[in-house]
Amino acid sequence: MNPERQKIAEDVVKASRILIKRGICEAFGHMSARLPDSDRFLITPSLSLAMVRAPEDLVEMNLKGEKVEGRNRQPYEVWLHTCLYRERPDVGGIARTHSFTTSAFAIAGEPVRPVHDFGCVMLGETPIFQDPALIDSEEIGNRLVGFIGKGAGALLRGNGTAIVGKDVPEAVVRAIYLEESALLQLKAKQIGQPIYFTPGEIQERSVDALKSPHVLRAWQHYCWEAGV
Amino acid sequence: MNPERQKIAEDVVKASRILIKRGICEAFGHMSARLPDSDRFLITPSLSLAMVRAPEDLVEMNLKGEKVEGRNRQPYEVWLHTCLYRERPDVGGIARTHSFTTSAFAIAGEPVRPVHDFGCVMLGETPIFQDPALIDSEEIGNRLVGFIGKGAGALLRGNGTAIVGKDVPEAVVRAIYLEESALLQLKAKQIGQPIYFTPGEIQERSVDALKSPHVLRAWQHYCWEAGV
Amino acid sequence: MNPERQKIAEDVVKASRILIKRGICEAFGHMSARLPDSDRFLITPSLSLAMVRAPEDLVEMNLKGEKVEGRNRQPYEVWLHTCLYRERPDVGGIARTHSFTTSAFAIAGEPVRPVHDFGCVMLGETPIFQDPALIDSEEIGNRLVGFIGKGAGALLRGNGTAIVGKDVPEAVVRAIYLEESALLQLKAKQIGQPIYFTPGEIQERSVDALKSPHVLRAWQHYCWEAGV
Amino acid sequence: MNPERQKIAEDVVKASRILIKRGICEAFGHMSARLPDSDRFLITPSLSLAMVRAPEDLVEMNLKGEKVEGRNRQPYEVWLHTCLYRERPDVGGIARTHSFTTSAFAIAGEPVRPVHDFGCVMLGETPIFQDPALIDSEEIGNRLVGFIGKGAGALLRGNGTAIVGKDVPEAVVRAIYLEESALLQLKAKQIGQPIYFTPGEIQERSVDALKSPHVLRAWQHYCWEAGV
Repeated sequence: MNPERQKIAEDVVKASRILIKRGICEAFGHMSARLPDSDRFLITPSLSLAMVRAPEDLVEMNLKGEKVEGRNRQPYEVWLHTCLYRERPDVGGIARTHSFTTSAFAIAGEPVRPVHDFGCVMLGETPIFQDPALIDSEEIGNRLVGFIGKGAGALLRGNGTAIVGKDVPEAVVRAIYLEESALLQLKAKQIGQPIYFTPGEIQERSVDALKSPHVLRAWQHYCWEAGV
Repeated sequence: MNPERQKIAEDVVKASRILIKRGICEAFGHMSARLPDSDRFLITPSLSLAMVRAPEDLVEMNLKGEKVEGRNRQPYEVWLHTCLYRERPDVGGIARTHSFTTSAFAIAGEPVRPVHDFGCVMLGETPIFQDPALIDSEEIGNRLVGFIGKGAGALLRGNGTAIVGKDVPEAVVRAIYLEESALLQLKAKQIGQPIYFTPGEIQERSVDALKSPHVLRAWQHYCWEAGV
Repeated sequence: MNPERQKIAEDVVKASRILIKRGICEAFGHMSARLPDSDRFLITPSLSLAMVRAPEDLVEMNLKGEKVEGRNRQPYEVWLHTCLYRERPDVGGIARTHSFTTSAFAIAGEPVRPVHDFGCVMLGETPIFQDPALIDSEEIGNRLVGFIGKGAGALLRGNGTAIVGKDVPEAVVRAIYLEESALLQLKAKQIGQPIYFTPGEIQERSVDALKSPHVLRAWQHYCWEAGV
Repeated sequence: MNPERQKIAEDVVKASRILIKRGICEAFGHMSARLPDSDRFLITPSLSLAMVRAPEDLVEMNLKGEKVEGRNRQPYEVWLHTCLYRERPDVGGIARTHSFTTSAFAIAGEPVRPVHDFGCVMLGETPIFQDPALIDSEEIGNRLVGFIGKGAGALLRGNGTAIVGKDVPEAVVRAIYLEESALLQLKAKQIGQPIYFTPGEIQERSVDALKSPHVLRAWQHYCWEAGV
């Protein structure tokens, strides 16, 4: 395995441990990363992310939807990833999560909106894809890609979230801060009326918040927390 | 002990550890499993599930309500299990839990309804048995069985839940997802108005959600979480 | 040390670990136990309960308010215990806690009422002592004793709770179930309107719930949880 | 290193572990302490507090805003500390946190007010600094100092809190009790209407609550909890 591929595979393994440790995923959910300069990506198998312990546990897929390598089976929802990597060259990592308070927002029919500095990593409100079906075919995968457009992700009603990033750390940090935003927004509603960040504030704060040192400081913290 | 009985006994022990680890039971609550092709079942003793460490800790009962084997005492509420196994040949495992948010729904007089994919394992809303007495006699046991009918279980007002499955993993995964449904439904109410799954959505999603690979993936995850 | 005194001292140490493990106390709060057939009691010192590791850490007091034995200092609020043991011969153990949701009920001016089977151990609603001062003199100690009357305890506005039992396990189990009641009552309010147990239901369920095997099963569970 | 400096540096390291253990900070936030009889202070570096393990990890700054010593980089928001130490000779320790429920109050535009004994350490309500920008320049640092005045700290909308103390333990205990106050105030709102402490009650209880033995008992507990 070349060093760049090895590094990306290790990031996917670390991301799996982080998402489990924080309860962003439990038995279901997956994580993937594009292999640069290729038509391929690595994805966690059809198993709980808690079982993903080494690069050898991952599955390598191509953008035609075919498995290329790996002893494990790809997840049923691999099309969510395939379709996103096809249409979004800016995307290098995808987190398919079941974060809890975020899910409650989708169930209540309300998007999650930035209310704090870190939440600006989502670039604005995260909208709700209303179809509760699994993203297990090219057809529904393409519909979801069209729905997300140029955005950072979507809530899937009754079925968690899909979050993209330029790489694995950005997708993971976004998944964590999206849940944090949802929980802050919920608590603020219990206190009174949330003061949402304005488009100008989101724009300004997101520039800082998505800078590499900032994302990598958070990634380092969550790696520490997960013991990886 | 024959291998099938051994496997079932080990599943009851694992289930006990899972329910404790997730806080679905604390000092009270029990778990049981039918012994196939017999009039018998295994049940955890009159002790916290945290004390259940090995098949030898279990009690074997027959469907007349008699203890057949085991060094420990059966729980006072053994009739809940006896009566269900008598009337429901499709039931192979029963979880008698005290999951917290689920209990709050019974106290508020509101059934728990599916709001997400995983919640469809309950096949629809889980209704409330209003009598807060212990299920410690054949009479009240039969009343509860009549109340549950062909359903997946019931909330017991002021006294937790009773949940059935075709086997131990199904009963446990249902217990976990019922609590998850309750918590999501509660949070969605704090945000706005929950969008409940329609009967058609429940029907469609429950077929997938109760397939063996799906239930066993969740069971494997929760075994990992509990260290068993 | 005679064996009975030793057993009681060990129960106070175990109780301290349990209250810390469950977050019923953090840096403040104390636990005491009457020494039978004497005018004396043992109490945890003026330190976090997390520092209480052995019988030698306890302070022995008499009912005149004098320290009789012990290398540590008694807590400022020792009068809460002294005055209760004087007036309530049925009391053998006292938990002075800062359980969280219970405290919120006092702050909202609403007593905690039984809504589930286990909550009946408090024998009815737990009323609020409105004075937020420390219980650090005989005068306020006696006022609190008068307020509690024959009850199982009181919420202290802005200052936690005082809970009595016939012995240490009963006081501890009551402290845990009072917090559980508060949390269930709060969640039920978020869902709809709590259905409180009627006086008849409380009376009936409390007889069972305060039987020794029931309390000791819970005590055994919480000892296991705290690793003692 | 002289013993006093060594002791202060160790307190900053302990404080970092405490804030991480309790979730008062995650990847961001910092802690600082004035070096007595000097124009200098120690501050945690531009890293998660989880990475701060020894005095050598700290950065020494002077009150001109210059780094004097240390292998690590100071945080971008060092000006928050510099400006406070310049104008507030009574301040010896500063906690820059992201405590969660406290943050939700700022997002809802509502200050946190004392509702319990321990909450009186903040001396009254903690007001909200409305500008969500980082405190990364002398200009905004001075504006924040003017806003805090003689107070114990401020909520920063969308960006956590800034809390001062006469030394590190006082700043840390205040940070913990401010979050506790926020959570109690929120829960009391869910139950009914919080009964806030009156100015007289705050004044009276804060005298006791800020006495050294009281603060040090809490500090000892939180050190134990964090394993330091």
